[in-house]
Amino acid sequence: MKRNERVGAIIKILSSRPNKVFSLNSFTDKLDSAKSSISEDIVIAKKIMENMKLGRIETIPGAAGGVKYIPVTSDEETQNLLEELCAKLRDESRILAGGFLYTSDIMFDSYIMKKAGEIFATHFLDKKADYVVTVETKGIPLALMTADALNLPLIVARRDSKVSEGSTVSINYISGTDRIQKMSMSKKAVKPGSKAIIIDDFMKGGGTSRGMVDLLTEFQVEVVGIGVLISMNSPEKKRVDNFISLITLEKVDTESRVIYVYPNKNL
Amino acid sequence: MKRNERVGAIIKILSSRPNKVFSLNSFTDKLDSAKSSISEDIVIAKKIMENMKLGRIETIPGAAGGVKYIPVTSDEETQNLLEELCAKLRDESRILAGGFLYTSDIMFDSYIMKKAGEIFATHFLDKKADYVVTVETKGIPLALMTADALNLPLIVARRDSKVSEGSTVSINYISGTDRIQKMSMSKKAVKPGSKAIIIDDFMKGGGTSRGMVDLLTEFQVEVVGIGVLISMNSPEKKRVDNFISLITLEKVDTESRVIYVYPNKNL
Repeated sequence: MKRNERVGAIIKILSSRPNKVFSLNSFTDKLDSAKSSISEDIVIAKKIMENMKLGRIETIPGAAGGVKYIPVTSDEETQNLLEELCAKLRDESRILAGGFLYTSDIMFDSYIMKKAGEIFATHFLDKKADYVVTVETKGIPLALMTADALNLPLIVARRDSKVSEGSTVSINYISGTDRIQKMSMSKKAVKPGSKAIIIDDFMKGGGTSRGMVDLLTEFQVEVVGIGVLISMNSPEKKRVDNFISLITLEKVDTESRVIYVYPNKNL
Repeated sequence: MKRNERVGAIIKILSSRPNKVFSLNSFTDKLDSAKSSISEDIVIAKKIMENMKLGRIETIPGAAGGVKYIPVTSDEETQNLLEELCAKLRDESRILAGGFLYTSDIMFDSYIMKKAGEIFATHFLDKKADYVVTVETKGIPLALMTADALNLPLIVARRDSKVSEGSTVSINYISGTDRIQKMSMSKKAVKPGSKAIIIDDFMKGGGTSRGMVDLLTEFQVEVVGIGVLISMNSPEKKRVDNFISLITLEKVDTESRVIYVYPNKNL
């Protein structure tokens, strides 16, 4: 195998499994080459990713070491994606009765969610979380892609307890529409003493996120970060303290049919 | 930029967006190289993917042409993944009260779902579908990854009609537990006259898939394929005719605590 073939294969293998450490030996076997050649290939792969802003390749020294791909999103790329998303959201045909916004096409778009998940992964990389947690339904793709980018398991809390979840712990919480709702999680899902990042599609008052924090507390799981795709800027006081949102929804003006949304410029 | 750098970058860009056609010009700009060099780079990239069985790179001739990555899974890789999955499923600690099986950790595992989605994408590639459709909740990751591999939008039917879905069409269907359940889909979700692939995590009698077929018929959408991760081999007669399942669940023996699951050898 020639060098350019090995470099291409290494990039494909690493980037299809973000944040997973691959041993150098796994490449010497697969590519039938000496460790010294593979090491040089990795240096080239690293340089490509850096120059092209396609993420970062990192080598971990030592016996348990190896190499991994980190899907870092640059500030410029983040802002471009968020501007694009805001433009999509401003389409007046999204306005529904009651001033709600139709966003399902976006929340279930795998490519947009992959890019948004990489933004969250970049932001939460240092949190050393053990899980990504969401509650069904519309936040699942975003949470899944964030989990994929961080190489973490995803836990999905359910609205009802299902037989297929085994024994569950349930809590009541106050949703965005001020109704009391139920949320439950399987006892098999998480280990006590671990850390979690909460990801959701939308935040109004923060009640659903609060519910997830409370539910995870029952499992002795610490929440080390909360990320939502869209948050409303009113009410200003949310039921959770620290969260990041990629996009702020200020207002849906049903009279003039204008949707006021802005990207988070601090990302 | 050197050749091996360009080849690496092309592989990364193509494989992060399966089945999307990239024009050659998009690469000449990004990699600051002549079209003739990029064409040669693509030939090398093609060869790498083929030799390493990492999928297929295809060039589309003509003015609207370009190049795309197709995440084809080889028969051998498919069988390896399914054997691995069956081994995971045979873990007796998965057995729940009533002979149910705990599978949430698998269904929400992004990497397993990505690989399984690529198997479905390989199988359904020629169906020329416009959408991938599922019903909440546990089938969403698998359906999302299938949609991603095929570069198609994902539509998620809901159990209840939500305000955030706008006006919806609902149907009643008979679920695996023989209860009558409701399923609804937003009128904004699909275009009449289009084609869809149905993806779900689990099939017992096929009632849920039947429900999705019936719901899509209301939208004048033709179902061109049905894929499930796990199907039970009893009842033998399902409520839908054509479907593929990756894994067959024969029996959960709650006495001896043995789970009988087999990979689909015909894939």
